Amino acid sequence: VSRFREEIGEQPSVAGRLLLGAGPAVEAIGARLRASPPTGFLIAARGSSDHAALYAKYLFGSRNRALVSLAAPSLFTHYGRPPRLGGACVIGISQSGASPDVVAVVEEARRQGCLTIAITNEAGSLLARAADLVIALETGPERSVPASKTYTASLLALAMLSQAIDPDPKFGAALARVPRALAAALEADQELDRLAPALLGPRAVVLGRGFNLSTAEEIALKLTETSYVLARAWSVADFEHGPIAVVDAGFPVLLVGSPGPVAADLTEIAERLAAYSCRVVGLFDGAAGPLGADATVHLSSGLPEELTPLTLAVLGQLLAHRVALALKIDPDHPRALDKVTRTW
Amino acid sequence: VSRFREEIGEQPSVAGRLLLGAGPAVEAIGARLRASPPTGFLIAARGSSDHAALYAKYLFGSRNRALVSLAAPSLFTHYGRPPRLGGACVIGISQSGASPDVVAVVEEARRQGCLTIAITNEAGSLLARAADLVIALETGPERSVPASKTYTASLLALAMLSQAIDPDPKFGAALARVPRALAAALEADQELDRLAPALLGPRAVVLGRGFNLSTAEEIALKLTETSYVLARAWSVADFEHGPIAVVDAGFPVLLVGSPGPVAADLTEIAERLAAYSCRVVGLFDGAAGPLGADATVHLSSGLPEELTPLTLAVLGQLLAHRVALALKIDPDHPRALDKVTRTW
Repeated sequence: VSRFREEIGEQPSVAGRLLLGAGPAVEAIGARLRASPPTGFLIAARGSSDHAALYAKYLFGSRNRALVSLAAPSLFTHYGRPPRLGGACVIGISQSGASPDVVAVVEEARRQGCLTIAITNEAGSLLARAADLVIALETGPERSVPASKTYTASLLALAMLSQAIDPDPKFGAALARVPRALAAALEADQELDRLAPALLGPRAVVLGRGFNLSTAEEIALKLTETSYVLARAWSVADFEHGPIAVVDAGFPVLLVGSPGPVAADLTEIAERLAAYSCRVVGLFDGAAGPLGADATVHLSSGLPEELTPLTLAVLGQLLAHRVALALKIDPDHPRALDKVTRTW
Repeated sequence: VSRFREEIGEQPSVAGRLLLGAGPAVEAIGARLRASPPTGFLIAARGSSDHAALYAKYLFGSRNRALVSLAAPSLFTHYGRPPRLGGACVIGISQSGASPDVVAVVEEARRQGCLTIAITNEAGSLLARAADLVIALETGPERSVPASKTYTASLLALAMLSQAIDPDPKFGAALARVPRALAAALEADQELDRLAPALLGPRAVVLGRGFNLSTAEEIALKLTETSYVLARAWSVADFEHGPIAVVDAGFPVLLVGSPGPVAADLTEIAERLAAYSCRVVGLFDGAAGPLGADATVHLSSGLPEELTPLTLAVLGQLLAHRVALALKIDPDHPRALDKVTRTW
């Protein structure tokens, strides 16, 4: 078994540990943010962590009514002309805590007097030392190059933070169900073999919207880095504004979603793509998705839409793993990659 | 000659007209923003216009030291839970002014008491009526489905707005040179035939960083919608964090850039990709790029880096047009697309 698959399997226990272990730190941060509410959030991150930031844009936006911006790190590093951050709370997300560009954004934010938070797996990292407050993911070492457990742990940390800022008993109960839901997602592993043949490359489109746009981006990245399939994610809305021209008969499209306000958009695009004879497959959590049983892996975790990016990310990791194996690629060591990338 | 190519050719005169015609409106908006500075900017847009918004993130960030967020429209439409916008200035960008989701963001911003600006080619559109202030692009009708002149006009309108907020004689002089620079870009049309064979599909990667990350995104979209090449753009930094695993010998990669603080990153990635025997080609404006003469189309517009996204977008449009012709695709009518997409 590859390390990637092993680490995918650790996610229920990682989530359980995070809910218990990080609770007090997150509560303290929530109290501080409630006492002096920031004008919004700025999040600096790269790769998978940037997809966690995209998730926060929707989660903090809808649950906390907070405006979330994703940082353009080169303004802080190469150009040396960072924007004025006003009273924003600045969050840096980095598994290793060693990304110089993410650290640079947090350092500048402190200079400007912003409250800064590090979300990282390395509590002693540069990033953790640069920030005022730290949420330690404590997932144990992630040795596979493609991120899995640190991605869902970052999502969960953000969801816990959202809850700490605006507590709601129902959402709290849903958070407590996350470890069990991730375990249920793992049980779908074999079923995913039905979807793998559609995604053997050389290219694929992954579509989501709303909360699961971040999941679509993350699954596209996983497919690209573990299986060398050039997978491109779009919001259904952006896709219909132009890129849809790329598809023709047989073109592989993966839809990712759950019941909720954007579900109808996925149904509609599924029908349109079926009319073009695309090869449409789907990962859904909740009531049956728009596709037939053959083309869908369908989970019923019972989580609210806001938390389905966790279960769906696990399905996407398992799927990317199966695609890699089908292509006889070692998912632990993608070509041309080291685990820690130190871009500036 | 296709309409797409005709409209590409109109860009120098469109830019000249915009500089003169929109000057007073933009000056008035600049005065208003100087009198009561917003806490930042929120921009709502789709497709090419969203790439103009990405340009503004770098331009307003570095020139005006303003934090720019890109809106998540579904929070305003499907979820009905928009974030609190505080004292942000909210800009909607839409060629047609008919995108219901962009209009919804601007309407909510007005409800929240934000100053709102529409950048649109249709001065009588829903978007123009929803906003407090309008910058009319006045490009004349854009009849080709892939945007060209409305894209560069949107970039120029944003650059004029940046200058109106923080006037600088040197930047003003550079703005005045834009029409001539776009004319120079048009003269490179034939040269682009050298690059087209690398980009005939089925997939390609387009890389930029900083100001020209927006250009990389826009060129990837143009290739995807006019030539059905699945082209995916990344910031060089994000690319090195994972997606670089996708490339192997012969994989086509287009680099887009100009001299400036991020140029060394492009040189470095070009060398790394060359070591993997990728098929690397480039579009550069300014001193010679990192690639040999065969693989590069090289312009010397004399524009500062901040304005090279205009000239490089024109080179990208011409290139996408040549790729479409080589593939015998009608660039005016991409399959599956209408000019106005009304996503909600």
